[in-house]
Amino acid sequence: MPDFSIETLGRCSIDSPLRLSVARGNAEPVFVEDDQYICYEIEAKPGPRSPVGRENLLELAGPRRHIYFSTAHVHAGIVTCGGLCPGLNDVIRSIVRSLWHLYGVRRISGIRYGYKGLIPEYGLDVVPLNPDVVDDIHKIGGTMLGTSRGGGTRTSEIVDTIEQLNLNMLFTIGGDGTQKGALAIAEEIERRGLKIAVVGIPKTIDNDIEFVEKTFGFDTAVVKASEAVAAAHMEAHSQRNGVGLVKLMGRDSGFIAVHTVLAVHEANFVLIPEVPFDLEGPGGLLELLEQRLSRRGHAVIVVAEGAGQYFFQNETTYDASGNRKLGDIGLLLKDRIEHWFQERNIEINLKYIDPSYMIRSAIAEPIDSMYCERLGNNAVHAAMAGKTKLIIGLVNNTFVHIPIRTATMGRKKVDPEGSLWRDAIEATQQPAMMVNPR
Amino acid sequence: MPDFSIETLGRCSIDSPLRLSVARGNAEPVFVEDDQYICYEIEAKPGPRSPVGRENLLELAGPRRHIYFSTAHVHAGIVTCGGLCPGLNDVIRSIVRSLWHLYGVRRISGIRYGYKGLIPEYGLDVVPLNPDVVDDIHKIGGTMLGTSRGGGTRTSEIVDTIEQLNLNMLFTIGGDGTQKGALAIAEEIERRGLKIAVVGIPKTIDNDIEFVEKTFGFDTAVVKASEAVAAAHMEAHSQRNGVGLVKLMGRDSGFIAVHTVLAVHEANFVLIPEVPFDLEGPGGLLELLEQRLSRRGHAVIVVAEGAGQYFFQNETTYDASGNRKLGDIGLLLKDRIEHWFQERNIEINLKYIDPSYMIRSAIAEPIDSMYCERLGNNAVHAAMAGKTKLIIGLVNNTFVHIPIRTATMGRKKVDPEGSLWRDAIEATQQPAMMVNPR
Amino acid sequence: MPDFSIETLGRCSIDSPLRLSVARGNAEPVFVEDDQYICYEIEAKPGPRSPVGRENLLELAGPRRHIYFSTAHVHAGIVTCGGLCPGLNDVIRSIVRSLWHLYGVRRISGIRYGYKGLIPEYGLDVVPLNPDVVDDIHKIGGTMLGTSRGGGTRTSEIVDTIEQLNLNMLFTIGGDGTQKGALAIAEEIERRGLKIAVVGIPKTIDNDIEFVEKTFGFDTAVVKASEAVAAAHMEAHSQRNGVGLVKLMGRDSGFIAVHTVLAVHEANFVLIPEVPFDLEGPGGLLELLEQRLSRRGHAVIVVAEGAGQYFFQNETTYDASGNRKLGDIGLLLKDRIEHWFQERNIEINLKYIDPSYMIRSAIAEPIDSMYCERLGNNAVHAAMAGKTKLIIGLVNNTFVHIPIRTATMGRKKVDPEGSLWRDAIEATQQPAMMVNPR
Amino acid sequence: MPDFSIETLGRCSIDSPLRLSVARGNAEPVFVEDDQYICYEIEAKPGPRSPVGRENLLELAGPRRHIYFSTAHVHAGIVTCGGLCPGLNDVIRSIVRSLWHLYGVRRISGIRYGYKGLIPEYGLDVVPLNPDVVDDIHKIGGTMLGTSRGGGTRTSEIVDTIEQLNLNMLFTIGGDGTQKGALAIAEEIERRGLKIAVVGIPKTIDNDIEFVEKTFGFDTAVVKASEAVAAAHMEAHSQRNGVGLVKLMGRDSGFIAVHTVLAVHEANFVLIPEVPFDLEGPGGLLELLEQRLSRRGHAVIVVAEGAGQYFFQNETTYDASGNRKLGDIGLLLKDRIEHWFQERNIEINLKYIDPSYMIRSAIAEPIDSMYCERLGNNAVHAAMAGKTKLIIGLVNNTFVHIPIRTATMGRKKVDPEGSLWRDAIEATQQPAMMVNPR
Repeated sequence: MPDFSIETLGRCSIDSPLRLSVARGNAEPVFVEDDQYICYEIEAKPGPRSPVGRENLLELAGPRRHIYFSTAHVHAGIVTCGGLCPGLNDVIRSIVRSLWHLYGVRRISGIRYGYKGLIPEYGLDVVPLNPDVVDDIHKIGGTMLGTSRGGGTRTSEIVDTIEQLNLNMLFTIGGDGTQKGALAIAEEIERRGLKIAVVGIPKTIDNDIEFVEKTFGFDTAVVKASEAVAAAHMEAHSQRNGVGLVKLMGRDSGFIAVHTVLAVHEANFVLIPEVPFDLEGPGGLLELLEQRLSRRGHAVIVVAEGAGQYFFQNETTYDASGNRKLGDIGLLLKDRIEHWFQERNIEINLKYIDPSYMIRSAIAEPIDSMYCERLGNNAVHAAMAGKTKLIIGLVNNTFVHIPIRTATMGRKKVDPEGSLWRDAIEATQQPAMMVNPR
Repeated sequence: MPDFSIETLGRCSIDSPLRLSVARGNAEPVFVEDDQYICYEIEAKPGPRSPVGRENLLELAGPRRHIYFSTAHVHAGIVTCGGLCPGLNDVIRSIVRSLWHLYGVRRISGIRYGYKGLIPEYGLDVVPLNPDVVDDIHKIGGTMLGTSRGGGTRTSEIVDTIEQLNLNMLFTIGGDGTQKGALAIAEEIERRGLKIAVVGIPKTIDNDIEFVEKTFGFDTAVVKASEAVAAAHMEAHSQRNGVGLVKLMGRDSGFIAVHTVLAVHEANFVLIPEVPFDLEGPGGLLELLEQRLSRRGHAVIVVAEGAGQYFFQNETTYDASGNRKLGDIGLLLKDRIEHWFQERNIEINLKYIDPSYMIRSAIAEPIDSMYCERLGNNAVHAAMAGKTKLIIGLVNNTFVHIPIRTATMGRKKVDPEGSLWRDAIEATQQPAMMVNPR
Repeated sequence: MPDFSIETLGRCSIDSPLRLSVARGNAEPVFVEDDQYICYEIEAKPGPRSPVGRENLLELAGPRRHIYFSTAHVHAGIVTCGGLCPGLNDVIRSIVRSLWHLYGVRRISGIRYGYKGLIPEYGLDVVPLNPDVVDDIHKIGGTMLGTSRGGGTRTSEIVDTIEQLNLNMLFTIGGDGTQKGALAIAEEIERRGLKIAVVGIPKTIDNDIEFVEKTFGFDTAVVKASEAVAAAHMEAHSQRNGVGLVKLMGRDSGFIAVHTVLAVHEANFVLIPEVPFDLEGPGGLLELLEQRLSRRGHAVIVVAEGAGQYFFQNETTYDASGNRKLGDIGLLLKDRIEHWFQERNIEINLKYIDPSYMIRSAIAEPIDSMYCERLGNNAVHAAMAGKTKLIIGLVNNTFVHIPIRTATMGRKKVDPEGSLWRDAIEATQQPAMMVNPR
Repeated sequence: MPDFSIETLGRCSIDSPLRLSVARGNAEPVFVEDDQYICYEIEAKPGPRSPVGRENLLELAGPRRHIYFSTAHVHAGIVTCGGLCPGLNDVIRSIVRSLWHLYGVRRISGIRYGYKGLIPEYGLDVVPLNPDVVDDIHKIGGTMLGTSRGGGTRTSEIVDTIEQLNLNMLFTIGGDGTQKGALAIAEEIERRGLKIAVVGIPKTIDNDIEFVEKTFGFDTAVVKASEAVAAAHMEAHSQRNGVGLVKLMGRDSGFIAVHTVLAVHEANFVLIPEVPFDLEGPGGLLELLEQRLSRRGHAVIVVAEGAGQYFFQNETTYDASGNRKLGDIGLLLKDRIEHWFQERNIEINLKYIDPSYMIRSAIAEPIDSMYCERLGNNAVHAAMAGKTKLIIGLVNNTFVHIPIRTATMGRKKVDPEGSLWRDAIEATQQPAMMVNPR
């Protein structure tokens, strides 16, 4: 039995110089209390005598001794939807190889160009898959199946096609919208009394799937984003009053921005959707930037694409799928910064970098490749056991099953009071809140 | 309250074709049962009504509202010991910057070349550190302080020097031996009635520190190891009967080998210290290799340096520190494989790769850089709060304090019955046990 | 004596199917004739009996047995001007180390932020340099001295400062404008009867310095540009009617675009300043793009920033230095392509990538590092020998001296009739001329 | 007409402090004289009035207006031989695409596993090639055709197979031995009165083909070798008396070692086959190493595998092909260095790195990809024009035809008196000759 008691030299009687919050609930990072703990051992079994409530328990992913589908009858389909994300081909490869080598499945179909490949109007487009076809695809970025946005709401047509193809399992690799579509498909399947397992592998470069600690491609995205911020730093550092401005992905959640800032050690401001900030006025970004430049001669700003959307209030529009179109915070910042310093007659050299597509199409880094390999394995195990309406997630470093309905109810966000954000602003040395005093 | 219940299509009545074990305790990967769960929420507080036992609780790392040391009186020392590991400079940089910028500490000393830099016989060697000195060191591999092996047992001399230097906190960056040395130092400090905090940052490229889910540099090691295995695959694949053989780090634990095999998708055999294997005889490695070559024409073998040490029983020697010297399993395999096929008059092309030093000296990948940044922050928070005899660890994705005594009692190993090893041998398609039938 | 005669199987009597030009002078790639040769041995000495004219001879760079400056009296200055370029720090490092270690020079000054660091109005900014200061700078992108644009025409003030600093050699690292400024400085120096050597190292990421076969940073630029085009290809390839559009550097010369297209093997159109093209009409880019999409489903276009400037004729403006501001051909193409397909009711997915700053700030690839090392060595040799008003150039793989006046008279361009452009359009399979028939 | 005259500040009357040789012919780097020049313009035509002798003229490569083979009748074969080299797949891809897209050839066969694939005893092994098959192979290292050593001397059997296959052009991608084999094949073809073009693409990672300025894969090799030397430097730098020792490729010529040393800027000794050195005694390597360690505390040594072979005189053996087997200079140096310091009771930390296979199997860097693309194009142009018994070479940056007989008569070597070696020893600061005074 481990002894986890920590020794101390004596009583702590000196006030910390750190500018952290004591109160909770005001969206600022807080001090840690000495009576805050986490569990080391997390395995648990439900039951009347269990100390852990059922609502806190996630089912382990992995191979079951008894399975639902007879190998000889399986026809599996794989579809990739939405934007590119590093690792798509690794996941496809892993699913195909697990089905083929572990379970002996011989009928595997790749649906081309997203859900649209299942809708007759766009042209049905299905290719047979086997280990030879997917052998080297992980060395190439993108998705060998192609992808597209939309189509996921045309549930009935999609299920018609699934029936025609005689699929009895469907692997849906995609984000929040894709998985909501997968759930609707699974419900329609159920309504028709069919026995088709629908298993999702969550894909979101923003890493914002609720309950899932990390989505595939995220580590690769941070690697590539770090290169962009390093470039911005170099440009800024090599000029008098150089300002490097980098816009990173992150519609609702600032994970990429925050992780990148921690990785490169060289940003001075990080702006994320979860933490509001003012531009003008005392304590606003522009004043702080001016102070930084006069003190150090250069500055780097990293902004998540979803940050500061309240600056665009009059311009809200929606795209075909009903998503709110984001205002371009990168260009807005670029304009406002340049205007601020022009007004003050201070010459600056601003370089703006938007590395989005170079990140999305990257080949997966080994850490992500490993993760994708295991996601694919576990998705196959779940489907073979007849489990459905679930995604494979990593929670507390363990692969688990999460119901699609539960996982798509909300979005994971950076906690402005938590340690991640605290470490990030300690790295940038920016104030916890860049807002005008009220 | 999340609903984590998983739906299924029906009862699973078909036996799985997977060759996994049902029984536990026989060192083979096992099937997962449907009643295996993990906790999602892991925060807990101890107390009479807590459902979680005290022995399962780890103290959260992070900044405390009240601290033990007065900033003006702090003189901190940093020492790096043992072999190189990606991220050493990132950790040094983070500690220096956290002390300086967050807490206002102005006296920070780097001890050069490991514990020996604190022992007069080897020449005391201490350099002043500040944010300017460490500004760009993370872009360079190795450790700016230098390192060495040994010296950690000369506790009394080391504490003499610490007293002379007037240090009141010491950050020890190193592996198992280093942290045991740190504990002895802290105990000697206590014996002398001094108030000096000793905080360790665990460093082991093998990732084998008990309780800690990942040590820094490990992800980078997997990235670099993957390049070596990819090279071995290319060499093997381009020859008739090509065999690529890669020896990776891993004295007692096969984590690097297993993760690399999962990352590259291209190895056919992985050999680790935790799982014994036979070379000769039916079901042994050589026979399986021959089968693989006749079936596919090439093969890749990844071996951890600590695997198969029972092949060297007559040659056990010990180094100066009392560690058992490992037999060179890479060269042994090379010889035995070549001999096996010569005897059978089969021409093979074996290429042997040992990338060890190119891995250890690598610059940290962004994922590790981020991790090092946070390790350093949290080490400083702990030391400032007067906590001592602890290491900073990551457990269930949370930074925590772990007593050095507890963390150095054993070594973390790959569980041969667990999901990591199971996924690895599913990736290689090797049998769970490569041993002769008894 | 080598025998270079080529044997053939017989007379060539079949017309080549290649669509190359026979006539010269019409800006289309031409066939090669069997009587076209180059010299293997290129060393030569001038003199009355020399078969080679003086105007075809370049002086070899390198160390001379007798030198002009006494080591003890040397005070060298180094300045970097204009935009960032990979390798700047390598060149600085090489100059400092050659002066220090080879010639024993101990006074070396870095001028900060370009020529402006020599002009009192902007604040004189000079730092002492030695091997320790520059030891690791090549591992970091950008320039450790900082840079700026402009200032090079304020010759008199600059020479005043040079006199005050007592410099007797100045190394100017920069492009066409910088070297013209260097020539003016050298002429003013001469007018004042001073003995100060001015030696330039040509820096242009566009690789467009006349007579010089390759400028430093160019190979690194191609490496980074290739990553951008590979990303564009992945994005295009993963979508139905995906179009990847990449804008690369190249104001007057398309070398980066052409080399990148040859390196990645995956672009379908390359557009450079040297070869005009039509957008609309038969044989224009848009029609050809439509044909490509209907045939293959995706396309990648690489455009040099200076291509197609005639589309902006009504908008010509000039910047402070008198340079013509380029119209943004990338955005123009993006708009025109999207408009073309909207009009035809064809859905396309266009992704536009502009990787400029990520290229300029990159760390030099080893090939460039090697080149920079040798450029720096040779620049020092030239200055120590009292040679002035020259740049160090690589011609036919040999380091030579080229007078600044000669090197800045024109710009090197891609020859539309030459083999480089021919190989590029063979790689893309685009027509030699994408213009409407007249 | 360019004016290339260089201006100087005055007469050079001071002796240079550089320790270079004045005399020629003693294998030490020499000073450059002021009357040494190279030609800028190198195009020339032979003829009675030409100032350039026929023996100095190389025929330009490229597409001819009239060709020898009728497209419909062409059956082309491609074979890769010998060790792996970055870019093999790029060359294969380029040949296939040029034949297919430019000339319309539809019958292209890949010979598998080197010349052995053409010899019945080993099993004939031929695969059809087309643009789809080769589309993504350049993203993968190795050779898609496989390779082997030997077999090239069994000319008659090979030509029998070529006749059976009805090949009328053969592209041989390989080194010195491969091209000698190709010449013998071409001569046998001629003897039989056949009309089959044999065109070689020289492949040698050592870059030692006579007359050819650079072979493909060489730049990539330098990139990867640089990583190994950087690792050695990090290991050495992080230890007291750390010694990094790296063995690089280079049987007869030290080009990789020399270029790498120039690229990384961090080696202190470079040892190549062309320049002899002593180990023991005054002025020998070991004494100089000891001096370096006592002065700087660490050292990096780069050695080409063919250096110092005279240390193995009693052990000369030959392999099956009649090549002299090299003694392992890396291990010899390791032993001798360790012994030297043990005898003197000086503790050192030596790390030995042999990155050979990780270099050979690397994916081609973009610079090499570009080069391979153009090599392939030009090889196809030559074969279609009925030219034979030639290799495609790059000379003075121009693609030319070189007769195989001429190119295989000798080996290109580093000139110990030339500027490349001079720059290398200026970079390492080692003496020009590390030999005992006689």
